[in-house]
Amino acid sequence: MLDAGGELAGVLRIFSGSSHPELAQEIANYLQCPLCRRTTSRFTNDNLFVRLEESVRGKDVVIIQSFSPGCEGGTSVSDNVLEMFLMLDAARSASAKSVHAVIPYFSYARSDKKDEPRISIAARLMADLLATAGAGHVMTMTLHSPQVHGFFSVPTDHLTAQDEMVRHFRNRDLSNTVVVAPDMGHAKRALKLARALGTSVAAADKERIDDKEVHIERIIGDVAHKDAIVLDDEIATGGSMIALVELLIRHSARKITLACTHGVFCGSAIERLGNMREIEEIVTTNTVPIPPEKRLPNMTILSVAPIFGEAIRRNILGQSVGSLFAYWPDQPEG
Amino acid sequence: MLDAGGELAGVLRIFSGSSHPELAQEIANYLQCPLCRRTTSRFTNDNLFVRLEESVRGKDVVIIQSFSPGCEGGTSVSDNVLEMFLMLDAARSASAKSVHAVIPYFSYARSDKKDEPRISIAARLMADLLATAGAGHVMTMTLHSPQVHGFFSVPTDHLTAQDEMVRHFRNRDLSNTVVVAPDMGHAKRALKLARALGTSVAAADKERIDDKEVHIERIIGDVAHKDAIVLDDEIATGGSMIALVELLIRHSARKITLACTHGVFCGSAIERLGNMREIEEIVTTNTVPIPPEKRLPNMTILSVAPIFGEAIRRNILGQSVGSLFAYWPDQPEG
Amino acid sequence: MLDAGGELAGVLRIFSGSSHPELAQEIANYLQCPLCRRTTSRFTNDNLFVRLEESVRGKDVVIIQSFSPGCEGGTSVSDNVLEMFLMLDAARSASAKSVHAVIPYFSYARSDKKDEPRISIAARLMADLLATAGAGHVMTMTLHSPQVHGFFSVPTDHLTAQDEMVRHFRNRDLSNTVVVAPDMGHAKRALKLARALGTSVAAADKERIDDKEVHIERIIGDVAHKDAIVLDDEIATGGSMIALVELLIRHSARKITLACTHGVFCGSAIERLGNMREIEEIVTTNTVPIPPEKRLPNMTILSVAPIFGEAIRRNILGQSVGSLFAYWPDQPEG
Amino acid sequence: MLDAGGELAGVLRIFSGSSHPELAQEIANYLQCPLCRRTTSRFTNDNLFVRLEESVRGKDVVIIQSFSPGCEGGTSVSDNVLEMFLMLDAARSASAKSVHAVIPYFSYARSDKKDEPRISIAARLMADLLATAGAGHVMTMTLHSPQVHGFFSVPTDHLTAQDEMVRHFRNRDLSNTVVVAPDMGHAKRALKLARALGTSVAAADKERIDDKEVHIERIIGDVAHKDAIVLDDEIATGGSMIALVELLIRHSARKITLACTHGVFCGSAIERLGNMREIEEIVTTNTVPIPPEKRLPNMTILSVAPIFGEAIRRNILGQSVGSLFAYWPDQPEG
Amino acid sequence: MLDAGGELAGVLRIFSGSSHPELAQEIANYLQCPLCRRTTSRFTNDNLFVRLEESVRGKDVVIIQSFSPGCEGGTSVSDNVLEMFLMLDAARSASAKSVHAVIPYFSYARSDKKDEPRISIAARLMADLLATAGAGHVMTMTLHSPQVHGFFSVPTDHLTAQDEMVRHFRNRDLSNTVVVAPDMGHAKRALKLARALGTSVAAADKERIDDKEVHIERIIGDVAHKDAIVLDDEIATGGSMIALVELLIRHSARKITLACTHGVFCGSAIERLGNMREIEEIVTTNTVPIPPEKRLPNMTILSVAPIFGEAIRRNILGQSVGSLFAYWPDQPEG
Amino acid sequence: MLDAGGELAGVLRIFSGSSHPELAQEIANYLQCPLCRRTTSRFTNDNLFVRLEESVRGKDVVIIQSFSPGCEGGTSVSDNVLEMFLMLDAARSASAKSVHAVIPYFSYARSDKKDEPRISIAARLMADLLATAGAGHVMTMTLHSPQVHGFFSVPTDHLTAQDEMVRHFRNRDLSNTVVVAPDMGHAKRALKLARALGTSVAAADKERIDDKEVHIERIIGDVAHKDAIVLDDEIATGGSMIALVELLIRHSARKITLACTHGVFCGSAIERLGNMREIEEIVTTNTVPIPPEKRLPNMTILSVAPIFGEAIRRNILGQSVGSLFAYWPDQPEG
Repeated sequence: MLDAGGELAGVLRIFSGSSHPELAQEIANYLQCPLCRRTTSRFTNDNLFVRLEESVRGKDVVIIQSFSPGCEGGTSVSDNVLEMFLMLDAARSASAKSVHAVIPYFSYARSDKKDEPRISIAARLMADLLATAGAGHVMTMTLHSPQVHGFFSVPTDHLTAQDEMVRHFRNRDLSNTVVVAPDMGHAKRALKLARALGTSVAAADKERIDDKEVHIERIIGDVAHKDAIVLDDEIATGGSMIALVELLIRHSARKITLACTHGVFCGSAIERLGNMREIEEIVTTNTVPIPPEKRLPNMTILSVAPIFGEAIRRNILGQSVGSLFAYWPDQPEG
Repeated sequence: MLDAGGELAGVLRIFSGSSHPELAQEIANYLQCPLCRRTTSRFTNDNLFVRLEESVRGKDVVIIQSFSPGCEGGTSVSDNVLEMFLMLDAARSASAKSVHAVIPYFSYARSDKKDEPRISIAARLMADLLATAGAGHVMTMTLHSPQVHGFFSVPTDHLTAQDEMVRHFRNRDLSNTVVVAPDMGHAKRALKLARALGTSVAAADKERIDDKEVHIERIIGDVAHKDAIVLDDEIATGGSMIALVELLIRHSARKITLACTHGVFCGSAIERLGNMREIEEIVTTNTVPIPPEKRLPNMTILSVAPIFGEAIRRNILGQSVGSLFAYWPDQPEG
Repeated sequence: MLDAGGELAGVLRIFSGSSHPELAQEIANYLQCPLCRRTTSRFTNDNLFVRLEESVRGKDVVIIQSFSPGCEGGTSVSDNVLEMFLMLDAARSASAKSVHAVIPYFSYARSDKKDEPRISIAARLMADLLATAGAGHVMTMTLHSPQVHGFFSVPTDHLTAQDEMVRHFRNRDLSNTVVVAPDMGHAKRALKLARALGTSVAAADKERIDDKEVHIERIIGDVAHKDAIVLDDEIATGGSMIALVELLIRHSARKITLACTHGVFCGSAIERLGNMREIEEIVTTNTVPIPPEKRLPNMTILSVAPIFGEAIRRNILGQSVGSLFAYWPDQPEG
Repeated sequence: MLDAGGELAGVLRIFSGSSHPELAQEIANYLQCPLCRRTTSRFTNDNLFVRLEESVRGKDVVIIQSFSPGCEGGTSVSDNVLEMFLMLDAARSASAKSVHAVIPYFSYARSDKKDEPRISIAARLMADLLATAGAGHVMTMTLHSPQVHGFFSVPTDHLTAQDEMVRHFRNRDLSNTVVVAPDMGHAKRALKLARALGTSVAAADKERIDDKEVHIERIIGDVAHKDAIVLDDEIATGGSMIALVELLIRHSARKITLACTHGVFCGSAIERLGNMREIEEIVTTNTVPIPPEKRLPNMTILSVAPIFGEAIRRNILGQSVGSLFAYWPDQPEG
Repeated sequence: MLDAGGELAGVLRIFSGSSHPELAQEIANYLQCPLCRRTTSRFTNDNLFVRLEESVRGKDVVIIQSFSPGCEGGTSVSDNVLEMFLMLDAARSASAKSVHAVIPYFSYARSDKKDEPRISIAARLMADLLATAGAGHVMTMTLHSPQVHGFFSVPTDHLTAQDEMVRHFRNRDLSNTVVVAPDMGHAKRALKLARALGTSVAAADKERIDDKEVHIERIIGDVAHKDAIVLDDEIATGGSMIALVELLIRHSARKITLACTHGVFCGSAIERLGNMREIEEIVTTNTVPIPPEKRLPNMTILSVAPIFGEAIRRNILGQSVGSLFAYWPDQPEG
Repeated sequence: MLDAGGELAGVLRIFSGSSHPELAQEIANYLQCPLCRRTTSRFTNDNLFVRLEESVRGKDVVIIQSFSPGCEGGTSVSDNVLEMFLMLDAARSASAKSVHAVIPYFSYARSDKKDEPRISIAARLMADLLATAGAGHVMTMTLHSPQVHGFFSVPTDHLTAQDEMVRHFRNRDLSNTVVVAPDMGHAKRALKLARALGTSVAAADKERIDDKEVHIERIIGDVAHKDAIVLDDEIATGGSMIALVELLIRHSARKITLACTHGVFCGSAIERLGNMREIEEIVTTNTVPIPPEKRLPNMTILSVAPIFGEAIRRNILGQSVGSLFAYWPDQPEG
């Protein structure tokens, strides 16, 4: 892969939005391509303005932007979304050959159904707006529900960081470990990881059921005296994770590790998680930027840059990227 | 509601496809509108041919077709889907004011994610094809997953038969009853029903997990010595239902009732379900036609005609239909 | 017009975004229709969430949102734009009969040309995104350049507040007054006002020309010993306005009035304008919310609610709204 | 052409639907490319499921499917059409570079006009649905009427097997031969063939005119004591062909040959044609699969694989394919 | 029908393009609606400019334009087509409720197939451009081939003047009359007329076949000593008509009448037709304007205004217009 | 650049419409590619017919057509526009790889706003129709207002001839020269030229203000005793130019040069300009064909062929063309 840059240097142009330039730089490094410059400013009337600083005519243009809440400079998800639209439009109208939207964290995936009247299924809306703005192809990771994939009208690669997780945990003694899903509805992810690690699996139920007669605060599968790896797609305020950790403790679990793809850590998440001594390790990825002050001593941040980088490389070169996908098959060795 | 026909007779035209004319007739009866005639034939080269036999110019046209496997005349789901496209196109191109696709059973909703490479998310594809063919509005019921709602680009009403279910079960002695969800992933439907009936709730896990170390064949919640109502969206071959009934029996459940919206009952489903003496009652609806030979003695078929009829009526008249929707709220009295 | 509500109450539903609820309420009052409730909240991951709290099925839905920088609650233009998209999508997918986007201040109109490489003509992009999100018709006021009207693919009414301005200034002694345009490129607006008021007209040149040999800091037309009304489309930081006032003073103008449609007043605009004693009056409108602390003693805020209200009323009733338009003809009496 | 595979192996992926795998294999052989594997199955609820078994990312994908009535496994035209849609969608959403729909027999071309009220012009509808499903380019052969070409919104190649026919008949003694068109409305095809063969031409009238006063059962042009080649686009039930043969016999024609592009041979066609001793030979092509039991002793089946193969090859390589087209010019030597 | 205007006056706005204001006025008269004023001018750079002089907001707008070669003021078909586009766009963008393009003579219907490489199927292109320009519904008459109907993506009414023809000819002694089709390819129209008149039918062959061995200059059916009514869709230069008249004379036909829907009469058509004494009468319609100098003494011009007027009326009122359509059924009495 | 043809010969196909074959030939020469043959004719019913005479399959197709009033053969702007649509459609439907519309003079750019009710913003309409007809990319020059760029939905290159102008004028003694803009609204173009030439700049006001009290017939900036270069985008009838020349004379300007990009010279423009002895030189370009009889002795026609040729070349090769653009930066040396 040393010659990736050589292969792609003439055809690829990578730009980063404001939300997560570090990840974009890492991806560019992986591809041995420079990260092209981009200018974003704000008019006095608060309008955003974006300029791509490199010619894109006839090039395959990759634009990387996480829909993450802003940490630096105070940009919000809304700013990040609109900046993405402006960059896509700028690239397309400047005669790019193809325009690829790379969205490591597609936050609006959570708004995936109409469980109340007169709301927007915002994940579908965002998918449509991205296409209108100029995205001809989308790459994203670990959508809240796999159905969201179907909201995109353009070809979309739904990647996974599972492989990185597996590699990370293989360094441990896994002989007495169980992977725990925080709710049965998303238990498949946990099962896949358990199979890859050769461990057992368990599941809790985080359905917010406060009905008096039914207390499903249960753990299905054996966790007593085992090391537990809790796997979720995203940790935001961390509330349900903390509740689960407490439940695991009551069930006599031993060392507890939290693992998630999207480490959003908003509100008092970091403070609360930092205070729980029972959490041995928090493993997450860098789909969302995690500033130094949020990096707890027991936090491991796996980089998704090689995954996105390799997916971009293979996509530009017309090679299969199946093994990087969210439907990643269940073979123990991946 | 006696004057519904009076209100709508001048503006509404209802047509039925070949899949389920009985339901269409019932809906027309509810609306006190005649069911318009429609001719479908097959050319010698097997092409379908459809003609609407009533002028639709300037009218609100409703076309009713279940995507059900054909029982009468051997039509298949594919035939039913294509006939629907032909009817929609015929109505639109004949200057209908609006064209409404009523699909009581949208079978392709099950193909809602890309869990393998290079497959079609067919539910999204069908939603797009329906729009291309002329549907400006869709009405359907109990989609396999609520996210499928977001696959439709045209306004879509996602209805539920829950109200009919509640009315049916209220006639029973429910004092010692539990509603059972066949898997945790879709436990919300069961919980809603339980609340409406004032019963407790339980859930099984039908995740097809054959992994040796984990046996999650469990029932969460108490079912021993209780009457159980098992609620699912659809019964096709009935395999998982039968497994669940056997599990309930092992857990000392008393009278067992099966309830589902879409009674597809294909393969040997009817034979196998008929042989299980422990099943007290099978409650389903008529979103899919159930021919006489499939009607087991203990089967109750609730009609969804009033639900679709009322939703059509309110839609044409511009009235709210919120209470008929799948996001039907959790109040005990509905 | 007293019976406007009577006419429209059954068919019209008016919602306001977060940017300017006061104007929306005034418009609703003009139409004698209640302003429907709307809920906006923010998920923990900073995603916006919107719910319309009134059934819109079969109704003409009007959604009012200025693309103004947020004052209350810290919403930004980006938040306001995305909230608009979510509201439009919610209304459309809830089977509204028609969806009208009312954007009193369309801030992105300033990004109307490609004067640098690889930028987005953001005004066109926003117009396209609005249509994708569900807008079937747009109403806006005094776009930065009249060509922006052509960016919209849906029917668009480009309104003007000129009539209100005329009515306001007619109360003065106008016998020795001149209307001054801040630059020749947009002198037509000033000329129209001058004709309606029966005054003379003059123009300055605010082309940002810092070239040494050419000093076009000139006033064309006679302003000496005259009362001057300076008319612009928008005052943001107020920088060029203040420079023009200073120039007018050097040219011996008497009482100086500033008039603009969009009173954005950002940065230190209010402070600087408040400090210029020579400004007799600032006349603006309420297309952008002006909080109490920004309301200078010499500021007059004309309401555009009757203009938008009347345009909405006539639009719903299928009556001509020509006289309210930006191509408002040049007759002295309007 | 020996190196076609060499040229295309890296960029081309050929898949076949269920309707006619033999032809697809022949085309693949012509191109010296392997036919990629594809899995089609049917869910218990009769839904179709399709998976392409080869990576298509960045490749030119060709999908071959005749809209023929199914012979093997009982698939119907409707199944074949839907399977085509699923394959197109799977290819497009898997990031194919281009997606080409090859439809040797586009059966719906017969539904090409609105000769009754409230019917679908189904050929146009199918063309639109193909584009929605993902076809970016279509290749087909001998459409029922040449206008159907205009129903496709994507670039479409309308091929002809005339060249193969000419080559076949040149082996005969053609000194006393006449090409006969079964009706004047499509006489041009016959005239072209006659010119290429250097024979005379005649035409019958198969307009279904049962009006009493007019008996146009005539042959225009001289057929007496001549060998006749009757040329039509398609033989379905064979009814009109048999009537024409009888008419030719009454007009003293000698040896009679039937020629058609699409040998659908449905109903009792094979039996009835087999019983007519006066038919010397039936020449058709393999656009529709003809199972062994339908292959009459006097039947010659010309392969269209080289035509489609060559058209695909030239299309991928950006070379002219004009001479393979349905507007094939009238020069005697082709 | 006397109260048509009363019914429609509040909702209908009729405009005429430059090509045929007389017909538009007649249609307006039929509907008892005023013909709204429209201004067309030409800028100095030859650009067309159009303004609708009546408010269309919320109205059903009908725009009438024949794609005829210009007689007055030298407008060409190209001017007429572009003027139509400008009028459609003006109506749509001025918030018309619906926009109907009435094209009595859609000249581009002749370009309906790709019989040469690298040409446009211009009839399809024009249909697409009309939709882009704003047409939501099309009304036209007697398209060159019925398949052209399928080129329109918007609902399209394909009308016929056959009824008027029948009424006209019924005034004659038809006891010894034959209706003659100029070529077999379009013989159906002649047959329909023959049936409605109770006459026999015959057909000639105008296929431009100059091949030496085949002389199909024949008349199929008996014309000797009969009065002949030759029916075609359009007479342009009249060349083939004159050839057919000569052929009929050689076949001893008696009185010869020419009938066509579109009397384009270009080039020397009028002069040549006027010189043929054997032509008893020329019956045409006013889909194309026929200036006084072209009106031969033996010419009868039937007005299509009642047909278009009635079709418009019924369309606006949502009533069936089937009997006015080109698929007018074959019953002898119509 | 000598090897441009070598680079592009295999992939590029250049066609010219009827409006300006000379320029197309020049562009082809620049690119060292042959100009492909194209046939345009007119049917007897005045319909246009176009055929591209060279295979375009898989090629980058460039179609060059000015929307200029016809000089040769009497074609009008309408004919030129429709011929363009037909050529674009022909190229696209013949499987071109990409279709580029080169419109050196886009005349409809003048219709860029809705300054009257119920008119079409025809520039936007034409942009939409071009895309519908098949243009995937547009190249044009010096649009009337820069906002018109935003009317195009496809990537559009807005070129400028400024560089050629600079080169031309540098040959002069510019020591005492001033560049004059005919109105302040478009003064930026003049300023850019002035900077590139190192001269001073002035501006007149051609706002058609006939109001009695205001006489803005002024020249801003010093022109007395200077050589004046008047720069405008287009000269049509020349009326305002002549008025300006007279004004400059009254202000004691010395030698006067007129410069414009689009030399339309319609009506009596040539005669009137030719009669003004004070005009030293008229510098224009060949975006519009200027027949020999219009070429005044003092007229210099700069060719834009190298600009369009180079932009095409770089576009096909994926190289930046920024320096050729209308947002050409202000550096003195270009």
